[in-house]
Amino acid sequence: SIDGQRLWDTLMAMAEIGPTANGGSCRLALTPEDAAGRRLLLDWCEAIGCTWRVDRVGNLFIRRAGKRDDLEPVGTGSHLDTQPKGGRFDGILGVLAGLEVFRSLHDRGIVTERPLELVVWTNEEGSRFAPAMVASGTYAGEFAVDDTLSRRDADGVTLGEALEACGYAGDLPVGEPRLDGFFELHIEQGPVLEEEGEAIGVVTGVQGMRWFDVTFAGQSAHAGPTPMRLRHDALAAAARLIDRLQAHALADDSGDTKVTCGCLDIEAASRNVIPGEVRLTVDLRHVVEAELDALQAVFERELAAAGETFGVAVSRERIWASPVVAFAPECIEAVEAATRAQAVPYRRMMSGAGHDAVYVSRVAPTSMIFIPCRDGISHNEAEYATPEHCSLGAQVLCDAMVARADR
Amino acid sequence: SIDGQRLWDTLMAMAEIGPTANGGSCRLALTPEDAAGRRLLLDWCEAIGCTWRVDRVGNLFIRRAGKRDDLEPVGTGSHLDTQPKGGRFDGILGVLAGLEVFRSLHDRGIVTERPLELVVWTNEEGSRFAPAMVASGTYAGEFAVDDTLSRRDADGVTLGEALEACGYAGDLPVGEPRLDGFFELHIEQGPVLEEEGEAIGVVTGVQGMRWFDVTFAGQSAHAGPTPMRLRHDALAAAARLIDRLQAHALADDSGDTKVTCGCLDIEAASRNVIPGEVRLTVDLRHVVEAELDALQAVFERELAAAGETFGVAVSRERIWASPVVAFAPECIEAVEAATRAQAVPYRRMMSGAGHDAVYVSRVAPTSMIFIPCRDGISHNEAEYATPEHCSLGAQVLCDAMVARADR
Ligand SMILES: NC(=O)NCCC(=O)O
Ligand SMILES: NC(=O)NCCC(=O)O
Repeated sequence: SIDGQRLWDTLMAMAEIGPTANGGSCRLALTPEDAAGRRLLLDWCEAIGCTWRVDRVGNLFIRRAGKRDDLEPVGTGSHLDTQPKGGRFDGILGVLAGLEVFRSLHDRGIVTERPLELVVWTNEEGSRFAPAMVASGTYAGEFAVDDTLSRRDADGVTLGEALEACGYAGDLPVGEPRLDGFFELHIEQGPVLEEEGEAIGVVTGVQGMRWFDVTFAGQSAHAGPTPMRLRHDALAAAARLIDRLQAHALADDSGDTKVTCGCLDIEAASRNVIPGEVRLTVDLRHVVEAELDALQAVFERELAAAGETFGVAVSRERIWASPVVAFAPECIEAVEAATRAQAVPYRRMMSGAGHDAVYVSRVAPTSMIFIPCRDGISHNEAEYATPEHCSLGAQVLCDAMVARADR
Repeated sequence: SIDGQRLWDTLMAMAEIGPTANGGSCRLALTPEDAAGRRLLLDWCEAIGCTWRVDRVGNLFIRRAGKRDDLEPVGTGSHLDTQPKGGRFDGILGVLAGLEVFRSLHDRGIVTERPLELVVWTNEEGSRFAPAMVASGTYAGEFAVDDTLSRRDADGVTLGEALEACGYAGDLPVGEPRLDGFFELHIEQGPVLEEEGEAIGVVTGVQGMRWFDVTFAGQSAHAGPTPMRLRHDALAAAARLIDRLQAHALADDSGDTKVTCGCLDIEAASRNVIPGEVRLTVDLRHVVEAELDALQAVFERELAAAGETFGVAVSRERIWASPVVAFAPECIEAVEAATRAQAVPYRRMMSGAGHDAVYVSRVAPTSMIFIPCRDGISHNEAEYATPEHCSLGAQVLCDAMVARADR
């Protein structure tokens, strides 16, 4: 019943707002581009009779009335903001598939028992305001409203100021409306579905994640006259840690242990100076919380050992932790039933990435639907999902939502 | 006969030009600060009757007349430019000790047989214009004048433009004046003399050096959903290389193998993105040329292996190579005789760092004199040498120069 072509056309129309040189999108949160994207969505929704409200942290709630508007709505949605060189699908698909669900029901004159709510969560990417998923986290009570409003971007602009400037500072209390359930459609952002030839991922939960800032403090010295044995090479210690963490994660045949060092900065780097200070980020993930504890212990042991070996002082700060999430069985089953009806290969899987659904799941029964993306690439202008997979994902979303709204 | 206090006072006065927050100096080559440093030196030299000329790459030649001005002069000198957060001694000591030699001879009314030439070589550090020692290299015929003039800094300014802007674009043909011999006094820039309780290093040559730019090209991807086994992590490959090179160098009990990775840059780094591209610098050094060949072979083998292991394409470019240098026996002996006369503990040693003397040695008999520096630290605001060692080094320089000029 979903119109796959219409969905694709809205994806391509949205991508015209903040286009980048190589076919991606740049709509950083609460910029004029982000506001223009929201406005385009609202035009489409108003045209089919939807109403909308905005909460104090800019989350946008678009309602399609049901037969029983006294009941809590069934929600869907994701985000419209992108990475600086982001793609056309990450987040956007989840929002525009919600629109397509509304349009399809509208075309057929179907009114569900419960109302439906399409949510655009503010600043999911965390590119402009750290951390990621900050506004769905605030909705779920993880962050205080005032703290969220006072988070600053790289230019010192607060999230609250940016909301005012772009016209999305609402007055709906944060945490409203409560949702009867929440379904989020998203590209996988990884290669598993594509590699396995599967069309849908029925997402049962989200792996736990811990983020660390690590500092190695050695002693910078001239590369030429300083004997190897008298060095305190901060980069050598960092390299040892990275190498040991890689070996540890690769040795886990289950593939559930993930370690990524994404940023490494050498203080006052110069090619003939032994690095004196290095800052490294470490991202640890696992699908089992106790295993994540064990992984953190390995990280701490290897960090201490690397410092010891190279005569370098080490320290680490845990700046973020997101526990393992198990989605609600009834929502997972609703997605699985809707997927089975499509007779396509699928798998139950854990999400590797954090999504707004992580926080929403704390206050409403939640699950997610994944579709494959080409080469597993996201956060990249080359991000791509086929029209067929987008359409299929939207169909599963529609069927799961209607089933829950009419149960 | 050297006035150690006067030498120290000139060192401290020079450090007032381009002072940094923590007691160091910032006089990048051919900036207004560098020009002000040269001007201060020229004022001091003019006051004792010296004349001066500048060649086309900005090398400054300051002459103290001898009895036989038809003979080639005996040279000394070093550089006045510094690292961005450099110290008060690296290079500067060699220049100001030359000034102190001139002043001491002037005070006593001594005129040497051959004239003496104090040289300030342009852009030794290589911090503003790569590579290091470019202007002494041009003097010695290693680099073509036009190539040197067209080297650009990070802002795109050429060395030639910077010379014009700061007023040191001279017209003396590069390679003039020819020198009868050259002696350079320098801080050791390493910890050996201090560790061994020795006051002077009689420098017999310079270890060979090779500089490489290495690129690791993998595939960036999201840290969360990408399985370890499907990654092409450019940083993991770089870390493996660094770790293997460290192990190789540390295993050489002679201490003659030196490996340093000073710069590492991750393209579009983000803490939850697997690094797709990494650029790394590698600096290899050894006192024996054949061993340096063998070290390069190990580097290339480990680089290929690291790329293979992590599914990352690797490439390397050798951007600079300086062969092992043996200084002239007669100059080494002149320095050793002058050192013995001081009755201080000393050692014959190879220089670990490149110096202008490396290139000058190709066109004139050359050697160097080292004094200890605290904790072996240089290229650092904390760089320090005692007034006693500075004075001792200048005395040895004076005696070696006079002996050669009057031989
Ligand atoms: N989907 C996404 O990129 N979320 C950001 C948090 C994470 O790194 O998983
Ligand atoms: N003395 C000095 O820092 N020279 C630069 C070339 C080198 O790295 O040795």
